[in-house]
Amino acid sequence: MLNFDFHNPTRIIFGNQTIARLDELIPTEARILLLYGGQSARASGTLHEVREALGFREVQEFGGIEPNPSYETLIRAVDTVRIHRLDFLLAVGGGSVIDGTKFVSAAVGYDGDAWDILETRGASIRQALPFGTVLTLPATGSEMNNGGVVTRRATQDKLPFRSPHVFPQFSILDPTKTQTLPTRQLANGVVDAFVHVMEQYLTYPIDARVQDRFAEGLLQTLIEIGPLMLEESADYSTRANLMWTATLALNGLIGAGVPQDWSTHMIGHELTAQHGIDHARTLAIVLPANLEVRREAKRAKLLQYAERVWHISQGDEEQRIDAAIQQTRTLFESLGLPTRLSAYQLGADVIDALINQLAAHRLTALGEHADVSLDVSRRVLEASL
Amino acid sequence: MLNFDFHNPTRIIFGNQTIARLDELIPTEARILLLYGGQSARASGTLHEVREALGFREVQEFGGIEPNPSYETLIRAVDTVRIHRLDFLLAVGGGSVIDGTKFVSAAVGYDGDAWDILETRGASIRQALPFGTVLTLPATGSEMNNGGVVTRRATQDKLPFRSPHVFPQFSILDPTKTQTLPTRQLANGVVDAFVHVMEQYLTYPIDARVQDRFAEGLLQTLIEIGPLMLEESADYSTRANLMWTATLALNGLIGAGVPQDWSTHMIGHELTAQHGIDHARTLAIVLPANLEVRREAKRAKLLQYAERVWHISQGDEEQRIDAAIQQTRTLFESLGLPTRLSAYQLGADVIDALINQLAAHRLTALGEHADVSLDVSRRVLEASL
Repeated sequence: MLNFDFHNPTRIIFGNQTIARLDELIPTEARILLLYGGQSARASGTLHEVREALGFREVQEFGGIEPNPSYETLIRAVDTVRIHRLDFLLAVGGGSVIDGTKFVSAAVGYDGDAWDILETRGASIRQALPFGTVLTLPATGSEMNNGGVVTRRATQDKLPFRSPHVFPQFSILDPTKTQTLPTRQLANGVVDAFVHVMEQYLTYPIDARVQDRFAEGLLQTLIEIGPLMLEESADYSTRANLMWTATLALNGLIGAGVPQDWSTHMIGHELTAQHGIDHARTLAIVLPANLEVRREAKRAKLLQYAERVWHISQGDEEQRIDAAIQQTRTLFESLGLPTRLSAYQLGADVIDALINQLAAHRLTALGEHADVSLDVSRRVLEASL
Repeated sequence: MLNFDFHNPTRIIFGNQTIARLDELIPTEARILLLYGGQSARASGTLHEVREALGFREVQEFGGIEPNPSYETLIRAVDTVRIHRLDFLLAVGGGSVIDGTKFVSAAVGYDGDAWDILETRGASIRQALPFGTVLTLPATGSEMNNGGVVTRRATQDKLPFRSPHVFPQFSILDPTKTQTLPTRQLANGVVDAFVHVMEQYLTYPIDARVQDRFAEGLLQTLIEIGPLMLEESADYSTRANLMWTATLALNGLIGAGVPQDWSTHMIGHELTAQHGIDHARTLAIVLPANLEVRREAKRAKLLQYAERVWHISQGDEEQRIDAAIQQTRTLFESLGLPTRLSAYQLGADVIDALINQLAAHRLTALGEHADVSLDVSRRVLEASL
């Protein structure tokens, strides 16, 4: 096991009827900016429920945070906070709204050009406004971690950042809030969480037994509940399991003390930035190809994955690895997420531009061995055609 | 899944060479009470290493905290803190030292008779001194939770308490510090962690899939590494796995959103208080008997435990349950922990006094269904003869 430093101070309030607890979680005198995305938060009644819970507190609203939240939009939220001298942020939404809120929390008091926060990947953050979240879309884990991703529309830069200053103070996870979500978003959430686990698990063995068991437990759970989530009638219990699984998939726990990959995410980000493909859908395209291309370096863990997660015991090593990758592909496809670029009418001609953007973002040595060069990324994209 | 409120702000610094990081974790101006147990902390060099890391900070020492720390001893530590106007506590040891430090942290500023903290099980705690820990004995999980157990020698009362105010600020987990521990303590640690998981897992099904998978992963890990830990040559990696497993066994995570039992602990506490049996050794005696006596109420989970943890697939339900309980017993015995009271020369004549103490402590409705009456506890003790 590698040495590690694990600290996750976010408080999780989980269950139905929990939004009312905002009243005890936020100081009475707080001056709040309530951030949200599209009109679904209003239409579903969640925004109203939140406003009710906040009672007589001063609240300004800032809606319209997009999927893959943009720097351009978020800077306007920063201005709103400054103009109204607000001192607490409350995100109501999924990963995009929460990621955006983290950026706003750090940018409000930032000394200098706020884009530096992204350029330094968060290292330049010295303080942040306190904030909480009400999660409406299980997927990204942002509700219980200290990272985010922001896109600059003007330049198609999609960049991650993290900082110990941007943990949510609390997150309210009410599984009933997933009931109005479109199937597509729920399916995306399952795959997003699945790939989060894989980025921290499918590397090389380091005798980190609990981390492996926990990762395998999350993957097994997602395999079990994924298909159930596609049914509109998915019950509370299944929704609750997805919500908590997605949070634990990326709250730092299973990644503590183990090597991590993340090359699938970095390549996927360029696909979203240049071709507008949903984040989770880019992961479904890149992961299987990535495992194929790097199967030698990942051999031992691929075999463990085949055995423990998919219970594959037939065939020689190559066959078991092939079967595990195929099962992964089949899972994503069964959830409605294509695993080939061709499904998006994208061919080999788009690869050069994607590689150029990876180069521009200095993403030239990705993966657990820092050996995913631009050439390897190119091969991964070729394998995903 | 049940609604839950999960918050664990303790920072974990894990790995070798980590004690030096005390210098960055504790304010330079802190006035520290360093609490420890017997002379092993000094003999092993850990105390010296800690003092070196603390540099020129003002440090008072308080040694002699016993296994099953006593109220009588801890009150003297409280006096030391008050006399020297200290403002930070640092526990160096295992669960007893850390539990004791939690009590001291809460008692120093307590308004009233400090025994009330135990009488109210911690509910009366309003504030506590900040403290950190350097863990030397993996077992109790106290290094990353907000509970403790204190014994009043005069009356043989052994009582638990918990409070959101007594989370360690940080805990340093250096697996090399387990190298000088006697085999008996390491074996106790494995069983202690195992039973902590069982108290949160082996109840009744509630479709909390990740909690179940995580619990099963911890149990499987303990089954794998338990025997390895008995060899003096156990390597760093195995020690690291035990340390992190024991922490995760009782940091609140696997217990969030699920029913919990804890009757084995409560009955075991009386055995320690009256007969001086090591805490973990009381659990090894009580758990198998408890599972036998309550097998109907625990049937579904016993079958899941048999299948997933012990891979038992042969026989009918009764046989699979019998086999799982027997495997549990065999595991404990193989680690050197007897599973019968007779091994301690205790017979049926001690049961009345134990039941009387459970009654005196109002522990008359234990377990996940609150149906472990004094009569059921008596049957458990009878089954453990």
